[in-house]
Amino acid sequence: MTREEALEALAAHRREVDAIDLELLELLNRRTRVVESIGKIKQAAQLPIYEPRREEDVFRNVTQHNAGPLAPDALKRIFERIIDEMRTLQRMRRDGAGRGTEQGEKQC
Amino acid sequence: MTREEALEALAAHRREVDAIDLELLELLNRRTRVVESIGKIKQAAQLPIYEPRREEDVFRNVTQHNAGPLAPDALKRIFERIIDEMRTLQRMRRDGAGRGTEQGEKQC
Repeated sequence: MTREEALEALAAHRREVDAIDLELLELLNRRTRVVESIGKIKQAAQLPIYEPRREEDVFRNVTQHNAGPLAPDALKRIFERIIDEMRTLQRMRRDGAGRGTEQGEKQC
Repeated sequence: MTREEALEALAAHRREVDAIDLELLELLNRRTRVVESIGKIKQAAQLPIYEPRREEDVFRNVTQHNAGPLAPDALKRIFERIIDEMRTLQRMRRDGAGRGTEQGEKQC
């Protein structure tokens, strides 16, 4: 492979990464909207916000279906970050609506 | 909304989250495979592994296309985690192949 061919192949692969990232972006925003709906239902029905077993279910769902090459612990760390960011958004929404933040709140 | 209706709506929303997560899983593994190909091309063509501007391009791509509700900083933190995990995987692959790890290596 010449240097020019390598650079061309690199550019093509990066366009592929960029396209995948836009799909990831769309899914992440879609997930956020569903989590926002979950928060509203819980508020309306006065259901508990924090359900630790649900978070375990989320991790189990993705690790059970993971065929790789991502390792289970890497996948778990990525989903921890996703869940954490969506929890923070929920907290901001609620605080903005003049409500207190529940300690240890988790929503996923 | 009765408590039963709320629980039913919650369950439906969680099934939706679980389905989205499996799509995220598929995309994350697809992205990992492309990043692995990028690593191989760079090794074969002896191109530098670490290209900091590429990482900025990745963040710019997603933040420029982000319509929300995820905030730009939340999105950036999620992609930092994704990039970091894929870099770790690359490092393990290379170390497993008897090569040294380049300080500050980044691949995305």
